[in-house]
Amino acid sequence: MASVRIREAKEGDCGDILRLIRELAEFEKLLDQVKISEEGPCVVGYGLYYFIYSTWKGRNIYLEDVYVMPEYRGQGIGSKIIKKVAEVALDKGCSQFRLAVLNWNQKAIDLYKALGAQDLTEAEGWHSFRFEGEAMRKLAGK
Amino acid sequence: MASVRIREAKEGDCGDILRLIRELAEFEKLLDQVKISEEGPCVVGYGLYYFIYSTWKGRNIYLEDVYVMPEYRGQGIGSKIIKKVAEVALDKGCSQFRLAVLNWNQKAIDLYKALGAQDLTEAEGWHSFRFEGEAMRKLAGK
Repeated sequence: MASVRIREAKEGDCGDILRLIRELAEFEKLLDQVKISEEGPCVVGYGLYYFIYSTWKGRNIYLEDVYVMPEYRGQGIGSKIIKKVAEVALDKGCSQFRLAVLNWNQKAIDLYKALGAQDLTEAEGWHSFRFEGEAMRKLAGK
Repeated sequence: MASVRIREAKEGDCGDILRLIRELAEFEKLLDQVKISEEGPCVVGYGLYYFIYSTWKGRNIYLEDVYVMPEYRGQGIGSKIIKKVAEVALDKGCSQFRLAVLNWNQKAIDLYKALGAQDLTEAEGWHSFRFEGEAMRKLAGK
């Protein structure tokens, strides 16, 4: 097992991260939604997160993507990334840590549940809705 | 039907908005998750949104809450709030407009679909997961 260091991204990682984003989208069967194409060779996984601030739900962290290259899986790198995000979340005073997962991605679901996450879609019935460009323009009358 | 003006919130609206947040949480059967209790009398609905910036998904707007007091429903105020958010989203260069809804809230689901939204949980299988405080602390080893 290779030694893996979990660290924050820096500017030089962009090429690698873009490559991983493409790989993740391919895995999620959503590659048609990706508009970038750079390639790179050395970062093996990434987690992309952002903070959201809600009046009554407090400060939350949202993990938008988490991805590890297939040949580096089974080494606990995904868990390490998630743990790192949890650390950052606590340091920043977040009260929740949220993420979304595709229902056929059983490995990821099992991992998140094993780490203590609750499936809110299952437990409370939350569904995610999206308006795309055309629908937004219609809504706005533009 | 009362005349309704859709506008951005200002500081003096805080009391009213907090009252509405409580009402929404009561409706969503999640009142135990609300930690505030101020009351106020005059704003009749609100939409709480924020922007998220993702490398490959672009700039998105996320409507966290949308709520109209029961006695003011059926006047299209919810739609007006959503249309306003779509306008803001386009002005700010967003490529998507997302929101979450509880699966038993059929009126809201019907409205969002009628306005052109797609149910991503249904269509692509996205489930929402959450780590709460205790799970986060365990993850971070704190």
